[in-house]
Amino acid sequence: MNKGTSMKTIILCGGSGTRLWPLSRNLYPKQFNKLIAGESLFQKTVERNLTKSDSIVTVINQEQYFLAVDQLEEPKVSSKVSFILEPVAKNTAPAIALAALCSDPNEVLLVVPSDHLIHNQDHYEEVIENAKQLAEQGSIVTFGIEPTHPETGYGYIEHQGNEVISFKEKPNRETAEQYLKQGNFLWNSGMFCFKAQTMLDELKAFSPTILENCQKVLESSSDFPMKRLSKELMEQVPSESIDYAVMEKSQKIKVVPTKLDWSDIGSFDALHSLSQENSANVYQIDAKNNYVYTDNTVVGLIGVEDLSVVETGDALLIVKKGHAQKVKELRESIKKDHQELTKVHLTAFRPWGSYTVLEDDPHFKVKRIEVKQGQKLSLQKHYRRSEHWVVVAGIAKVTVGESVKNYQANDYIYIPKEEVHRLENEHPEKVVLVEVQVGDYFGEDDIVRLQDDYNRE
Amino acid sequence: MNKGTSMKTIILCGGSGTRLWPLSRNLYPKQFNKLIAGESLFQKTVERNLTKSDSIVTVINQEQYFLAVDQLEEPKVSSKVSFILEPVAKNTAPAIALAALCSDPNEVLLVVPSDHLIHNQDHYEEVIENAKQLAEQGSIVTFGIEPTHPETGYGYIEHQGNEVISFKEKPNRETAEQYLKQGNFLWNSGMFCFKAQTMLDELKAFSPTILENCQKVLESSSDFPMKRLSKELMEQVPSESIDYAVMEKSQKIKVVPTKLDWSDIGSFDALHSLSQENSANVYQIDAKNNYVYTDNTVVGLIGVEDLSVVETGDALLIVKKGHAQKVKELRESIKKDHQELTKVHLTAFRPWGSYTVLEDDPHFKVKRIEVKQGQKLSLQKHYRRSEHWVVVAGIAKVTVGESVKNYQANDYIYIPKEEVHRLENEHPEKVVLVEVQVGDYFGEDDIVRLQDDYNRE
Repeated sequence: MNKGTSMKTIILCGGSGTRLWPLSRNLYPKQFNKLIAGESLFQKTVERNLTKSDSIVTVINQEQYFLAVDQLEEPKVSSKVSFILEPVAKNTAPAIALAALCSDPNEVLLVVPSDHLIHNQDHYEEVIENAKQLAEQGSIVTFGIEPTHPETGYGYIEHQGNEVISFKEKPNRETAEQYLKQGNFLWNSGMFCFKAQTMLDELKAFSPTILENCQKVLESSSDFPMKRLSKELMEQVPSESIDYAVMEKSQKIKVVPTKLDWSDIGSFDALHSLSQENSANVYQIDAKNNYVYTDNTVVGLIGVEDLSVVETGDALLIVKKGHAQKVKELRESIKKDHQELTKVHLTAFRPWGSYTVLEDDPHFKVKRIEVKQGQKLSLQKHYRRSEHWVVVAGIAKVTVGESVKNYQANDYIYIPKEEVHRLENEHPEKVVLVEVQVGDYFGEDDIVRLQDDYNRE
Repeated sequence: MNKGTSMKTIILCGGSGTRLWPLSRNLYPKQFNKLIAGESLFQKTVERNLTKSDSIVTVINQEQYFLAVDQLEEPKVSSKVSFILEPVAKNTAPAIALAALCSDPNEVLLVVPSDHLIHNQDHYEEVIENAKQLAEQGSIVTFGIEPTHPETGYGYIEHQGNEVISFKEKPNRETAEQYLKQGNFLWNSGMFCFKAQTMLDELKAFSPTILENCQKVLESSSDFPMKRLSKELMEQVPSESIDYAVMEKSQKIKVVPTKLDWSDIGSFDALHSLSQENSANVYQIDAKNNYVYTDNTVVGLIGVEDLSVVETGDALLIVKKGHAQKVKELRESIKKDHQELTKVHLTAFRPWGSYTVLEDDPHFKVKRIEVKQGQKLSLQKHYRRSEHWVVVAGIAKVTVGESVKNYQANDYIYIPKEEVHRLENEHPEKVVLVEVQVGDYFGEDDIVRLQDDYNRE
């Protein structure tokens, strides 16, 4: 193979996407929402980089690792992807430092956010190839996108050919129009390409504390494909963006101008303009140019236009085109009264599968629980609730105290308060059960874990 | 008491309200929705007529009797109200004939629909008194409302003083403007006042078949306060409106012109213009003049105006002001794919209480069931499902085969396929239980009723 140096894609997967509430929640950020044709932005990012890269490393919050693995199983590309699991978020500079420290010094790294959408794949691959050549010569390459309109939501790069003259913060409208007119300004895409050693040299020169702390973190970490980091050590690492830590200081920066058809889906306005496709179960009369997302609810629209309508079972957002930047503010108001609505969905993903809250009452709670093949929940007990389980699909292996037995559809299991218990699926078919909790408190913090495959507290 | 002749209000409670979907459903029509300040139009209609009437008779579809009784318990007026239960709907003429046949011939009857809203109560009572005097003299009195705008949604009455010149169908815009300009046209409110004997005489003269058939129906009916009618006999009665059967033919018609502040809440536009009050859990930014109805879902609106937003858990409707007449058409499209959405709500009311569907899957179904004090479900069995019950509140008396026992919160009961069972509440506290059905069919028609307090099949 005459490919030259090997290349590795580093996917930065730490974003939260508060402007896409109620679709994105703290524990289910926007890169995992299946926004476009049933695929998530994370899935699309992986697929986009499969041809040019020899391998992919995803730097991700450890809470979301299982979400990512789940989504990789769908296009079946998990063998090429490994993970660095961050116990705490520390912005982009530490994430990039950790990835560079784990790489061969001569390897070329392509760093991309997990929440971008790029339509022209051929041009993307061409652009990557150009960047790679500059990276091999010792540059840190940024990707600039030729602006199509005076966008105020992005940073800009002033350039001459591949040379960067200056980085510019998000401009106001007037300045953005000025940039567009001058013609030598590019949108800053937030993607980078460099040899691992180049980045390590620059970090050493301009942000040595970050580099040293990341080295310490890695000394005690577990191995790939799922590299776990110490929370204590990670908390010592300064939180810094790569722009501030390196890009604005280094003399090795180049830019590759591109005509990428690119979006960061930063708001429902962006989503609206990208997606003409509504969910099933949408009925419209005298209505046009609306983006509708709904799970199970049937939606009818009459006489309205230019709306984004987002329905998630527990929350509904209706926003007029052009107003999507205000979603963040609305989310803050709602958070004051309904914190859970900004944090979790009705369906929560767990390493072993998922659960969906069917009813939440002060005296009881009803959940549907699904356990994937070969997975088990922690060995646990509760002080303030009893649990009644009715198996409705699959074969559930259930521990209650000293008893360990298999149960099938239509079987019932009672778990008294304070009794140690565990739910497990040793068979290929998914286990589904309905759980009725009875008691006076149902928070996730009344779970005492005695043993856990996923090392949760 | 110098009140003169006694007066009785007849409430016609058979409307369906397809233009208020998804709030109104076939089995939960608009007069029972708590649309205005937490009260239903039916409740408001009862209250409005309490002072002037000695008693109230509600003519209602027998399926909705329990809904009505439930709502009467809230303002605690049930002692003054009795019912005629129609096994099939036959329009207004048979309903009025039945009510007249059950009355003292000299009694004055005031006939009112169940779904009107009237704000100026003092004027209403004054108008009723005027109508009563004309009725005592042998007239059939209609109530005309002085139009405030060229409405095309109502019929009109051309009049001179109390004399009716002609009844007019719903006009087009131009004609409506002409009526308004001429000044001697009134909106036809659909309310009537007459002596029972007067109406019976006119029915005998102009619609004898209706009268004779209604007499036969009543020969075998049960007694007040809950008069049940034979379905077989009722099916023989012609379906006819009172307008066609009597009003357009009789020479005894008079009209009382009024300045009632009146609405029939015929659409979300009407509701919108009446109600500034949104449900709790509504958050708005740069949004104005929106009517929002939501049960449990949190709703956020940004940058929109003049919308009616109606969220019922299983359906969402967004309609721009001025387009509400199209709801009926939208409902028809949705009915083709989702018939249940036009028929029932997630919560269904039953004589013994209510149930709410929490999950509906091909292999299992989860419900929350609530049983009122002193009520019991039918003694029943199912061929295609087992049931698992977890009591979460109250004391449930449960029959399973030969066993009859009391169960309390955190108790579990298993009901195998084909086993006879019954659920009952003999205590003041509401019984609440979570039911998990497991099987391959969960329709309401897999209920074999062996004994039923409410005489259901």
